[in-house]
Amino acid sequence: MATTPAFDIVFFGGTGDLALRKLLPALYQAHKAGALHADGRIFALGRKAVGIDGYLELLQQRVRPGLGADYDDEVWKSFAARLHFHSLDADNIQDYQTLLQAMGDAPERVTVCYLATAPHLFITICQHLAQVGLNHPNVRVVLEKPLGHDLQSSNTINEAVGRCFAENQIYRIDHYLGKESVQNLMAIRFGNTLFEPLWRREWIDNIQITIAEELGVEERGEFYDRTGALRDMLQSHLLQLLCIVAMEPPASLAEDAVRDEKLKVLKSLKPFSTEDVLAKSVRGQYRSGAINGMPVTGYREEHHVAPESNTETFVALQAELSNWRWAGVPFFLRTGKRMQERVAEIVINFRDVPHALFPMPMGLHSANRLVIRLQPKESVRLYFLAKEPGDAMSLQSTYLNLDFHTMFKARWADAYERLLLEVIRGQLGLFMRRDEQAQAWTWVEPILACWSKYAIAPKTYTAGSWGPAASSALASRAGFLWHEET
Amino acid sequence: MATTPAFDIVFFGGTGDLALRKLLPALYQAHKAGALHADGRIFALGRKAVGIDGYLELLQQRVRPGLGADYDDEVWKSFAARLHFHSLDADNIQDYQTLLQAMGDAPERVTVCYLATAPHLFITICQHLAQVGLNHPNVRVVLEKPLGHDLQSSNTINEAVGRCFAENQIYRIDHYLGKESVQNLMAIRFGNTLFEPLWRREWIDNIQITIAEELGVEERGEFYDRTGALRDMLQSHLLQLLCIVAMEPPASLAEDAVRDEKLKVLKSLKPFSTEDVLAKSVRGQYRSGAINGMPVTGYREEHHVAPESNTETFVALQAELSNWRWAGVPFFLRTGKRMQERVAEIVINFRDVPHALFPMPMGLHSANRLVIRLQPKESVRLYFLAKEPGDAMSLQSTYLNLDFHTMFKARWADAYERLLLEVIRGQLGLFMRRDEQAQAWTWVEPILACWSKYAIAPKTYTAGSWGPAASSALASRAGFLWHEET
Repeated sequence: MATTPAFDIVFFGGTGDLALRKLLPALYQAHKAGALHADGRIFALGRKAVGIDGYLELLQQRVRPGLGADYDDEVWKSFAARLHFHSLDADNIQDYQTLLQAMGDAPERVTVCYLATAPHLFITICQHLAQVGLNHPNVRVVLEKPLGHDLQSSNTINEAVGRCFAENQIYRIDHYLGKESVQNLMAIRFGNTLFEPLWRREWIDNIQITIAEELGVEERGEFYDRTGALRDMLQSHLLQLLCIVAMEPPASLAEDAVRDEKLKVLKSLKPFSTEDVLAKSVRGQYRSGAINGMPVTGYREEHHVAPESNTETFVALQAELSNWRWAGVPFFLRTGKRMQERVAEIVINFRDVPHALFPMPMGLHSANRLVIRLQPKESVRLYFLAKEPGDAMSLQSTYLNLDFHTMFKARWADAYERLLLEVIRGQLGLFMRRDEQAQAWTWVEPILACWSKYAIAPKTYTAGSWGPAASSALASRAGFLWHEET
Repeated sequence: MATTPAFDIVFFGGTGDLALRKLLPALYQAHKAGALHADGRIFALGRKAVGIDGYLELLQQRVRPGLGADYDDEVWKSFAARLHFHSLDADNIQDYQTLLQAMGDAPERVTVCYLATAPHLFITICQHLAQVGLNHPNVRVVLEKPLGHDLQSSNTINEAVGRCFAENQIYRIDHYLGKESVQNLMAIRFGNTLFEPLWRREWIDNIQITIAEELGVEERGEFYDRTGALRDMLQSHLLQLLCIVAMEPPASLAEDAVRDEKLKVLKSLKPFSTEDVLAKSVRGQYRSGAINGMPVTGYREEHHVAPESNTETFVALQAELSNWRWAGVPFFLRTGKRMQERVAEIVINFRDVPHALFPMPMGLHSANRLVIRLQPKESVRLYFLAKEPGDAMSLQSTYLNLDFHTMFKARWADAYERLLLEVIRGQLGLFMRRDEQAQAWTWVEPILACWSKYAIAPKTYTAGSWGPAASSALASRAGFLWHEET
């Protein structure tokens, strides 16, 4: 593994959930793997003045257990030597100056300011960073989603941040882009001759993208009830996956070559008319049910959720791309909480054979399908028909299988580890550009507006199911079924 | 399994190696599986008057051990009840009449005459069968390969047999066509949308067909020394496999629809000029070496082989098809005895990507390949490049895998079992039509003639290797390597 340049990382929200659950474990792993430059420092910031000892104590409580067998006392000690803690009030310019003094003024040094805070603080923090000069060309600012609530609010943030930092200093995180399996989708499409010739309307019947969670809203009820599945998941992760599935081959892997192609996909998404929203979108909300045999409460009974809430915890859409490659091919997108199982996958359903030579098995519509499983266990399966052994020429569904963890024994980096290393190295390719994000909002807004205008209430579904019946109906109206592994 | 109609099978050469090693075990298995009509009789013929008891004793010695766990005393008894033995001198018309009387004259009954004898007896036997009336429309005659030594001798046999039987009564066996895995190749190509669009010159770089044996000539030295690998294997099995790989989709699975397409492939084989023979054919002959660590003698030291023999035990050809789909795509065919391992496989090497986005691993030419293994363990592997887990965008070769025996637990019928059932049912599709066979001879004859005219001696290769170095050179001159599983 190549090491990074020398760096400083500053975590705003250093005592928060994201920092403790994802960012510090990711840096520990990168440190353990030898990927971090010896001269790399980590500045965690928090409101309370816990001091470095208090902070290290917090990490022992909150970070260490999650590391499991990867925890090593010696490695941890050398990692801890990189750590600094400073208390900071985001509104207080004096605290920024103190931080800067502690860091030592070194504008040639790569400095990553990671804003793992509530988004309403983004503008203030960026302005203060600029005020104290922590926006020199080697400073990179990382913004966590959600970056606003709609096109207007995201524009407001982007414009304000854009007055403090150039676009190429801004790293908007969608952690799905850091997943090995999503990277692999690029490799499968563009590193091989096998798939690309088939990857178009002539041979593909429909494409399905699913991100299903078993979790409910947990402690995020207040945020989630204002947000819903369309804003929280579909606008970001699902559209990003759609881009990678549907984009034209870029001329290179240069960051803007790839992001230009993704933007083209977003721009070719056919806008939803009111009729489209009624016919091709499904909102759902879970009621009480069971996950893995354990009873769970319904959404309206969750903490900090309004008892009459009409927020969707499930959304399914039938989208279409108005371009030469994909015209007429339905893209089914769905995501939900409290689903039957945790799974993220992309399913490419190929067309049926034009002329059936063999007696076809019953009910085997789209017998040719490529299933790219992103989580929990990365795998690729290519389903096709083969001859059943025996006397008759009858076909049976079977698959070619590749389990990535079995095939590649190397350590798999978590998405956040990958993305942090990319930021330190100054690689923007795996981050969303402002225009991508704006375009995604532009496409989803009419759907939100229509739901709101016609007061379309979500259909209920039982926690632990695959969502409301209307979701199955959406697919079956178009002649398909959702792919569900049995 | 559907049962056959009522039938009689008459084995000429009933005490011979093929009958004992393949045909009777195959019928026993079909009987055990319930595939044979209750009213189905088996007449074994031999020169010596051993009587039915002597014959059953012979089967106990020679057939039973090979059945292993499939042998069952009760089943064997009911199978033995089908068996009859008659002594017959192929030249003696009286013996045929005796046989006919024993069978009882029943021209409505399906009667299979299986000529498991030396080919020089084919004409005599057919003429005598016709003379006694055993050529009525329900009689089918099965001819084992080799059917002649060249175009002229095969024409002689086919014409003589054709005066006694209509073409649709003649079943020319190539047991490769009875293999599950060869049947599956048809299913893979024409039962799926996935492969057919890629199955052409635009996407395929080259195709390799290998049938490698570990065995030497064993007890067949006398026959083999007159024959050689080109006549024995390439003219028959390899060209049949080539047909199934390269043919256009037939309009149906009807026997002549498929055989018409196979014939078209044979007719589009580009004839070898003298220059082609010199540049694109390799003859080899094994010298002593080792197979699986055991020393083995060289070909010239084998029983009944001339000590100065120039017969080839290995042949490799670079063929080409002059048609729209395949123009310019090399088809590498090779077969040999005393090779490093026993394997029959078809390898489709796809073209490289037109534009490399990713840094390509060294030496991974044709990283996209489909390997269809026909024996010993039927499997399909689709090799492609995937991203190596980790930090860099570097690709690594991997494969999607399907092991047919793991996937399909059903009993696999041996090729001869399948083919015998097809004959009893009157299905000609898996047998070679006269024009196919003639065309195959037409194509190989100039190669034989040129070798002979210029006295091209075979290159020696060590037993237990992959053939002479010239074989590797043949592929590498065209820019390829033979696929060899490691």
